[in-house]
Amino acid sequence: MAPQHAPSAPSLRSRLAPLLFLLQTGFIIIYAFFVEVDSNVKVDVETFSDFYAEFQDVNVMVILGFGFLCTFLVRYGFSGSGFNLLVAVMATQWAIILNGIESWYYGGKIRINLRSLVVAEMCTASVLISMGTMLGKTNPVHLIIIALLEVSGFIVNEWVLQTLLKVRPLDTIMLLHVFGAFFGLMLTWILYRKGSEQRLEKEKFDKKTGLFSMLGSVFLWMFWPTFNSVLVDDRTPGRKLGAVCSTYLALAVSAVTAAAVSLLSHPKGKLNLIHMQSCILAGGVAVGVSMSAVHQPWEAMTIGFSAAILSTIGFQYLKIHMLLAFQCHDTCSTLSTHGLPGLLGWLSHLLLQIKDSDDHTTAIRFAVFHICTLLITITISLSTGFVTGLLLKWNFWRPPQSKKWFDDQAFWEFPHNAVCK
Amino acid sequence: MAPQHAPSAPSLRSRLAPLLFLLQTGFIIIYAFFVEVDSNVKVDVETFSDFYAEFQDVNVMVILGFGFLCTFLVRYGFSGSGFNLLVAVMATQWAIILNGIESWYYGGKIRINLRSLVVAEMCTASVLISMGTMLGKTNPVHLIIIALLEVSGFIVNEWVLQTLLKVRPLDTIMLLHVFGAFFGLMLTWILYRKGSEQRLEKEKFDKKTGLFSMLGSVFLWMFWPTFNSVLVDDRTPGRKLGAVCSTYLALAVSAVTAAAVSLLSHPKGKLNLIHMQSCILAGGVAVGVSMSAVHQPWEAMTIGFSAAILSTIGFQYLKIHMLLAFQCHDTCSTLSTHGLPGLLGWLSHLLLQIKDSDDHTTAIRFAVFHICTLLITITISLSTGFVTGLLLKWNFWRPPQSKKWFDDQAFWEFPHNAVCK
Amino acid sequence: MAPQHAPSAPSLRSRLAPLLFLLQTGFIIIYAFFVEVDSNVKVDVETFSDFYAEFQDVNVMVILGFGFLCTFLVRYGFSGSGFNLLVAVMATQWAIILNGIESWYYGGKIRINLRSLVVAEMCTASVLISMGTMLGKTNPVHLIIIALLEVSGFIVNEWVLQTLLKVRPLDTIMLLHVFGAFFGLMLTWILYRKGSEQRLEKEKFDKKTGLFSMLGSVFLWMFWPTFNSVLVDDRTPGRKLGAVCSTYLALAVSAVTAAAVSLLSHPKGKLNLIHMQSCILAGGVAVGVSMSAVHQPWEAMTIGFSAAILSTIGFQYLKIHMLLAFQCHDTCSTLSTHGLPGLLGWLSHLLLQIKDSDDHTTAIRFAVFHICTLLITITISLSTGFVTGLLLKWNFWRPPQSKKWFDDQAFWEFPHNAVCK
Repeated sequence: MAPQHAPSAPSLRSRLAPLLFLLQTGFIIIYAFFVEVDSNVKVDVETFSDFYAEFQDVNVMVILGFGFLCTFLVRYGFSGSGFNLLVAVMATQWAIILNGIESWYYGGKIRINLRSLVVAEMCTASVLISMGTMLGKTNPVHLIIIALLEVSGFIVNEWVLQTLLKVRPLDTIMLLHVFGAFFGLMLTWILYRKGSEQRLEKEKFDKKTGLFSMLGSVFLWMFWPTFNSVLVDDRTPGRKLGAVCSTYLALAVSAVTAAAVSLLSHPKGKLNLIHMQSCILAGGVAVGVSMSAVHQPWEAMTIGFSAAILSTIGFQYLKIHMLLAFQCHDTCSTLSTHGLPGLLGWLSHLLLQIKDSDDHTTAIRFAVFHICTLLITITISLSTGFVTGLLLKWNFWRPPQSKKWFDDQAFWEFPHNAVCK
Repeated sequence: MAPQHAPSAPSLRSRLAPLLFLLQTGFIIIYAFFVEVDSNVKVDVETFSDFYAEFQDVNVMVILGFGFLCTFLVRYGFSGSGFNLLVAVMATQWAIILNGIESWYYGGKIRINLRSLVVAEMCTASVLISMGTMLGKTNPVHLIIIALLEVSGFIVNEWVLQTLLKVRPLDTIMLLHVFGAFFGLMLTWILYRKGSEQRLEKEKFDKKTGLFSMLGSVFLWMFWPTFNSVLVDDRTPGRKLGAVCSTYLALAVSAVTAAAVSLLSHPKGKLNLIHMQSCILAGGVAVGVSMSAVHQPWEAMTIGFSAAILSTIGFQYLKIHMLLAFQCHDTCSTLSTHGLPGLLGWLSHLLLQIKDSDDHTTAIRFAVFHICTLLITITISLSTGFVTGLLLKWNFWRPPQSKKWFDDQAFWEFPHNAVCK
Repeated sequence: MAPQHAPSAPSLRSRLAPLLFLLQTGFIIIYAFFVEVDSNVKVDVETFSDFYAEFQDVNVMVILGFGFLCTFLVRYGFSGSGFNLLVAVMATQWAIILNGIESWYYGGKIRINLRSLVVAEMCTASVLISMGTMLGKTNPVHLIIIALLEVSGFIVNEWVLQTLLKVRPLDTIMLLHVFGAFFGLMLTWILYRKGSEQRLEKEKFDKKTGLFSMLGSVFLWMFWPTFNSVLVDDRTPGRKLGAVCSTYLALAVSAVTAAAVSLLSHPKGKLNLIHMQSCILAGGVAVGVSMSAVHQPWEAMTIGFSAAILSTIGFQYLKIHMLLAFQCHDTCSTLSTHGLPGLLGWLSHLLLQIKDSDDHTTAIRFAVFHICTLLITITISLSTGFVTGLLLKWNFWRPPQSKKWFDDQAFWEFPHNAVCK
């Protein structure tokens, strides 16, 4: 096997380095010709400061939250946090360009401001969610390709929904959880390899990595109210406050419920740390997707309650079935953490909107549109995932061997060899 | 002993899970009938954004700061951070309800906004402080019960002080340090068990857990100026800035002083990491309690200086005496970290106010009221602690055996067994 | 050797503790007579809230970012984060005094507000940068002396530049990277000791400490836009937004480029974690120094691109040459992380300004002034560093022996002996 495993590391040198240089210089050239800072500032001084703290919260979630959430694998901490950073910055630069195409078409320039950075980071979040399914089983070249294709797919989906179905931009962005989860599932199904059923020793966490990923999880949990409220229009007073309070309460309920279900689903009544890290976020996901229709605290809490139950049960029982029945090896159980709560949020949105409708016609009309929204999103998500998966199967990218999965050693210069010469 | 230790884990399943479900559905029902988001927004758009960053700082302190400060025990990191989250969300939901009773009584509804979330998180902070005394010696069922009873006690205390003695709300809230510390001490005295004098190997920190708790401590230290200033009325310009600067300087002085005293009190002149984590916060505690009377930077700095000396000496010499003489086993030395600096802050408030008084009558009048405030707080704190302690002695809650103290293994599914099936 | 190593620890007791007490009481006395909170508030309520979140970001960078970045050494985590805190608070208190001398001279009082705290923390940042060169090779007494002298030198430099060359305050502050790096290099050259060429086992990182320093690095990376924009005048709309966007994009490009260069410079094409932690910041440093002249996103991105290449190559090849050829043992490779990107930023500023100039006279005039600015900064930096180095060579301060370098055990009471008695 020795000659076979040798190429796995050099692949980074001969594939990743040129790819990064190529893309990065390409981006700089595009930015040089088409991007400028939004100097046409009706956005006055105050608005900047008001928005800046929220922008930073989202930034912390994307870079630190998702990054450290991925450090739980016992030998994959450097990759978990490092590749997350790398992918996030590539995806964000790309999303800024794609999101600006419309403004470029009409005005000749892509204008960036805090809002466009936040929107770009949200597109990035959908990539980071998908990456959870593939955590530890790819090399960074794959991840960069996934990032670029998924961001493109996600923005196409947004555009389709906004143009064809007149869905509001905020609602389309919030579908990132559903989009990310299904994209990731399709990807992991296509890239499935025999032997994944056997749990590797490395596919576990230990006491210290558990705490690092707890840190990431807690940052996501704390700043999720910002994530859901940052793009809510603050011209209607109270809308933003409502979004914050709803998300906060839904997250609180999720944390309690996830703990309770985790206890019940363990034969000896013990808590599972991974449940406590992933499923406490389910309420935030579900409320985010149904944000426009949630008006009362108890509605948010009920959604958080159901989402956490669904997510924890999914985590406990679905993951293994997905693997055995559908050959989907989903490392971070993204389906349960983002997919199911996202679908639940979609359903809650539907039910709440129907409840609030005055007459049947509006209700049915909304339902049809809402169902189409979901179907289109899932279709685009699965098909982009399918295409990406096929592309990644190409051996040119030198995928890591299964026995090198979940291991930093393949990609990182290791401490006991040399640190800083 | 084998048959006896078996029930310790299942207790979580048969006690904690139903308790969590019961309380959580109870809360959702209460919220459904009585709670709404404060839509009566004289709180305009700007105020929301101005306040939101400060709300998040407090949120970070409560969830991340206290949570990770509790991860220092070598085998109790998951419980330290996980149970902290669980208790925080239960206590906050409960505090929102209790704090809103008055507004419910007059208006039929409890209105939540960012301010009420912050106030609720401060009540929660008093619970998290108490929990420091019991860290590692309880099961989560105990912690939930402590949370609910202590929040109730604390809010009763606030109400009594505000109604009987006309103490300003901000001053009553800041007594949370004193309330929490004495509540915790009473609790740990009642729940004392023979054998605690022997230090367990597990009741220590190691290199890695030391850094995790350093992280929590540093977050508390950094955001303490927000904690003290967030509720200060910003209609008087400069008041809030004064609170921030005072707290910042007091914390800076505390950090220096705690290091110096820690060196002097060690026979070989070494620093103690736990001192550097707990006692650097003493200035923030003391200035918080005396906030209304501190007007000059040097006053804050002197308070920070004395608080750190008191706290570090207390930590070094008092803890062991509390254990041997009074049978109080105080894991995190809450008395020294929050109790003594809180009392010092109370005393400083008294002295500064007397110094500022124009005539003797006002001074004496204030002193009498101020002393009553403290006595009432300590009385309510100790008596609530006493009742809670008695309730927890009940074997129905299945307390963990001493030999299972300070150990995650009793509560958490462990990595080497299974992570994600 | 036994009798020789004995004094190393007690030195802390007999040197550090009195020094800390002396300085701290001195500071309190100075503050009592000369410092007051800026109550003359044209700074209205809104401005406070707008600025507060940015102040906290800088605070997080200084305390947490730099602190945890220094925890990477395998046995030096407590010192890395603990001494960082100690030095930061001493330096900030001292910087507030020195920065206020002018206002004291004219108005009799030093007035503190959020802006003066931020400026003081930036002076502190220059100290923390220098400390990177000496990490693990000093005792805390040295660090405190370095802090006081370097802050003084830095503020003298600012004063000289602003008075003689009429450089704008913001531009002088941003030279902190260059000042800190050269100060540190001079220091480590003077304090060089034979035997440093041999890498010690302790001068490495391991899996867990690597993640802790990743955490610090990520916080620096995320909040660097705040660091560069916080002092930008927000009366011109769009300036601050420009600073944020430029820094954000430069950092993004740096992260990608640093990864690519790190791969290329490793014989087996592996990533180096330390590169990923230090060199991703190069773009922030370079753009910070050239901030006033950067107007287009692509300019910032190009600067970030070049800075990351320079920084990563410097890290890989320069460090060892500095050690062998110039006897500079630079633990954190501060030259490559802050020095070279700082110089590059200075150069970019020059080029961009010349490009923007209308006629040759202005361009040449600017160039002369700009070159003088750099020369004065480097001269003052090196000479202050020289004086500080000579002072520290004095054996009175009891420097740690080489074999005790990079080791917490010399300074910290260790877990397996006793935690909390």
